[in-house]
Amino acid sequence: MDLKGEIITTPFTFASSTLAIENCNLKPIFCDIDPNNYTIDVTKIEELITPNTSAILAVHVFGNPCDVYAIDAIAKKHKLKVIYDAAHAFGVEIDGKGIAEFGDVSMFSLHATKVFNSIEGGILAFRNRELVNKLGSLKNFGLSGDGEVIFQGTNAKMNEFQAAMGLCNLKTVNSDLEKRRTLYKEYENGLKDVSFIQLMETYEDVKYNGSYFPIRFSSIELRDHFFGVLKKYNVMSRKYFYPLTNEFTFDKNLSSKTPISKHISNGILALPLYTDLSVETVRKIVEIIIYEGDCYKNV
Amino acid sequence: MDLKGEIITTPFTFASSTLAIENCNLKPIFCDIDPNNYTIDVTKIEELITPNTSAILAVHVFGNPCDVYAIDAIAKKHKLKVIYDAAHAFGVEIDGKGIAEFGDVSMFSLHATKVFNSIEGGILAFRNRELVNKLGSLKNFGLSGDGEVIFQGTNAKMNEFQAAMGLCNLKTVNSDLEKRRTLYKEYENGLKDVSFIQLMETYEDVKYNGSYFPIRFSSIELRDHFFGVLKKYNVMSRKYFYPLTNEFTFDKNLSSKTPISKHISNGILALPLYTDLSVETVRKIVEIIIYEGDCYKNV
Repeated sequence: MDLKGEIITTPFTFASSTLAIENCNLKPIFCDIDPNNYTIDVTKIEELITPNTSAILAVHVFGNPCDVYAIDAIAKKHKLKVIYDAAHAFGVEIDGKGIAEFGDVSMFSLHATKVFNSIEGGILAFRNRELVNKLGSLKNFGLSGDGEVIFQGTNAKMNEFQAAMGLCNLKTVNSDLEKRRTLYKEYENGLKDVSFIQLMETYEDVKYNGSYFPIRFSSIELRDHFFGVLKKYNVMSRKYFYPLTNEFTFDKNLSSKTPISKHISNGILALPLYTDLSVETVRKIVEIIIYEGDCYKNV
Repeated sequence: MDLKGEIITTPFTFASSTLAIENCNLKPIFCDIDPNNYTIDVTKIEELITPNTSAILAVHVFGNPCDVYAIDAIAKKHKLKVIYDAAHAFGVEIDGKGIAEFGDVSMFSLHATKVFNSIEGGILAFRNRELVNKLGSLKNFGLSGDGEVIFQGTNAKMNEFQAAMGLCNLKTVNSDLEKRRTLYKEYENGLKDVSFIQLMETYEDVKYNGSYFPIRFSSIELRDHFFGVLKKYNVMSRKYFYPLTNEFTFDKNLSSKTPISKHISNGILALPLYTDLSVETVRKIVEIIIYEGDCYKNV
């Protein structure tokens, strides 16, 4: 799977997915996102396709899957590869299928902050058996089994301590996922009727992983205000994703006609959500938001 | 320190130093090596310099330092930067100075196989304070302290477990170096008069780190024969560096007029050398080589 030219992607993502495109000497073409589920707006993909387009790199944001069926149809029609940044989506299912069943390759992050972690590292899931040797070689200096350098590789090996941590965490991954889903529900029940924040749209046919609980304010000023307010209570929320990846300051050539992404990125705070968090603490955080937001309830 | 165009380097090195050049979209220009100390032949550098040359990337092979004084003079004369691949050279001193005192940047490997290790990882040593922020950012997705992406970075962070391992190993690094020097001496005393192998030339003004003990045979056939013989005794030697990095099979455009490098690479075996190795085992390995080489003593 050698990609060339342009890759259609979204700017509401962590720096790494856009950098992965640029570091391969490919050109990211930014598609705007859906204002309700924060993933790529599938109605805007086709207008960006040119003869140079070779793939779509879409992001399952906060564990919320892209419209994988629409993306699949577009990709088939235009003969494009589909890569999913599933960094947030370990354990997510659509219609009872694991999320990596969709697309040509899905990337899961195993960074320490993730649902399932191996300190640092990640997983690539794919069906194409030819990629096994190629990707195995690329992460190990491009070496083949007999010591020839057959690809322009790098050092991206998982080390033994990371593997050991991954094996340890694998034992509790299902109960960890359940804990996170419980915490997510607690936030959702506490905040769904709060007038001055909006929650991410979720879907019946998706089994979520409780990876993040993002809340959205109507303006950057209000978002930044609440970021500060929560910090005063020692609650560390995160402006995430912010800034957008088509606002890299080192590359002024990136297109940035993605007003919905800009609006969402300016309004978002991800609230604390991790396995050791207690339901009681979630309730306190909800109370703080409601108490501190009393003056904004008619905003 | 932004480099452009061509980088003069040597092919008798691990894949990573040449890949580092290629992965930065720079062109490696291969200089041959000295047949006795295996580092860059400083008499052959200047003929390779063109208006496109921006740096010399030289390798302190097996902990044997390059001719740093000659390289420094050439670099000053032609206004080139000097980068040392000091992966093998942690703890090496020249004229009482740490080896990283020479050149613009020195890279030490902290891979698990190295004199001082942090599982995976490395150290960059340099004087230019401007590089602190730039390199710190490059390894962390190009992020600045306030979350802007200011460089085209990647994820090359040292993780917490690696840092912890490094701190543990730092406690014993001096005694580890002494043990290695003892083992090195034992090999040297046992093998220096063996007619069918040659040892790497070493120098009085250098304090070595005992990182590797390479022995050299006159032909690839003899080298490969001994590789197999040692394996029979459960002694795992290593063809190192082999193949040369101007023989990358993915890049047929690399120049390869480096006959000395080819000859050395075909003849080398690195013998086992690690902190927990005993002097008795080194003696046994020496005995095996002498016993099995009896028929080659007049070669």
